[in-house]
Amino acid sequence: MRTLLIVSHPDIIDSYSHPFFLNSLKNFEDVTVHHLENMYSDGIIDVKKEQDLLKGHDRIIFQFPFYWYSSPPFLKHWQDVVLEEGVTHGPRGGILDGKEFGLILMIGVAESEYQAGGNEQYSISELTKPFQALANKTRMHYLPPLEIFQFAYLEDNQKMELLIRYWQKLTMENSKSLVTREKWLYDKLEFSINNNQHLNDRETIEFAMNILEENQTTINNLKIVLDQMYHR
Amino acid sequence: MRTLLIVSHPDIIDSYSHPFFLNSLKNFEDVTVHHLENMYSDGIIDVKKEQDLLKGHDRIIFQFPFYWYSSPPFLKHWQDVVLEEGVTHGPRGGILDGKEFGLILMIGVAESEYQAGGNEQYSISELTKPFQALANKTRMHYLPPLEIFQFAYLEDNQKMELLIRYWQKLTMENSKSLVTREKWLYDKLEFSINNNQHLNDRETIEFAMNILEENQTTINNLKIVLDQMYHR
Repeated sequence: MRTLLIVSHPDIIDSYSHPFFLNSLKNFEDVTVHHLENMYSDGIIDVKKEQDLLKGHDRIIFQFPFYWYSSPPFLKHWQDVVLEEGVTHGPRGGILDGKEFGLILMIGVAESEYQAGGNEQYSISELTKPFQALANKTRMHYLPPLEIFQFAYLEDNQKMELLIRYWQKLTMENSKSLVTREKWLYDKLEFSINNNQHLNDRETIEFAMNILEENQTTINNLKIVLDQMYHR
Repeated sequence: MRTLLIVSHPDIIDSYSHPFFLNSLKNFEDVTVHHLENMYSDGIIDVKKEQDLLKGHDRIIFQFPFYWYSSPPFLKHWQDVVLEEGVTHGPRGGILDGKEFGLILMIGVAESEYQAGGNEQYSISELTKPFQALANKTRMHYLPPLEIFQFAYLEDNQKMELLIRYWQKLTMENSKSLVTREKWLYDKLEFSINNNQHLNDRETIEFAMNILEENQTTINNLKIVLDQMYHR
């Protein structure tokens, strides 16, 4: 699975959270990081190139700061010019048909405010309806978004947990089953061990991989037992 | 009541509907038409000037084509730079506190598609949640929007009816009571008679005004009778 991460930020140099996440993706061969404002500093979008990029990926993710409950201006411009009836979508389908689509939102206000009675009054699910409608129109499968609230206030371990959820949102199959998560982790560790020079790290990673494999064997054995009981 | 009509359109020269409505406003002294892309063709918004404009009006209306379920890029940019915590809004209120806020949307798809089961899946009320949240955050009163679907396909009399609803959205008190609508019409006719040179038109308008006044007298008399019955 190849993922196109479309990043939009009117002023990313002043951002603390976006670089934290983006810098972690350097070794992710199956993720194309595509920062719109960087790519098109003159404001003129190469529509054909963008449509080809969409074509070459299976999962499309928009990552942006959630100012005034919507996308940055340039990402809206991208939508207006790149999403073209008859090419990307249409009654007979288009480039985007059947792909996955998701949002990664950086949000400056606390999560608890996004509900009836909170300061923001509406939930993120309500406020992102335009993007759900976009997925509906282009026949993409809308993924649960990754919502990152008040990143700068988090503890280091919370940031690391978010980073893993970030990687999963970009590269893991859209399933929360234990098997999916273990398989994803095993692949990541395997990649790590092949790219790591430090002996101590290699030993730690190998140890983790062995545990995962043992877990998997135990679970498979339990499944066989359950299956036998069921059919007895 | 003074109304600020903030118009945004990425390419208004190609629009048929927007000029139709905007050209009708030439004699509306209480409506300030403010076309963002025209005003700031270099893309640089005068924030202080915009905030002063907001301050000087009681009703703020955004008029734009509803592409991809949201505002044009430049109107989003306007929101991001003009709406400034501590000035336009904030915990202790701001310029916008208590004003009215509404949307006038030009929509290319039929109304029936904007519902569960329709092609667009969601209602306009659902899709405009970000603007309702904006009104909530800035403590403005959110008006029912004026939604203009597939304007180019309408008959002439339907267009004229829409034009009246358009004028009402901009200048009429937010109430659908008969008294409000009659008062609004009477004022408009009075303005018309003072600015019209054609004798025949003047006579028609005077006739209409007399009927309205008679209606009003009849209704007032009925109210007195009802009141007397209630207190007997």
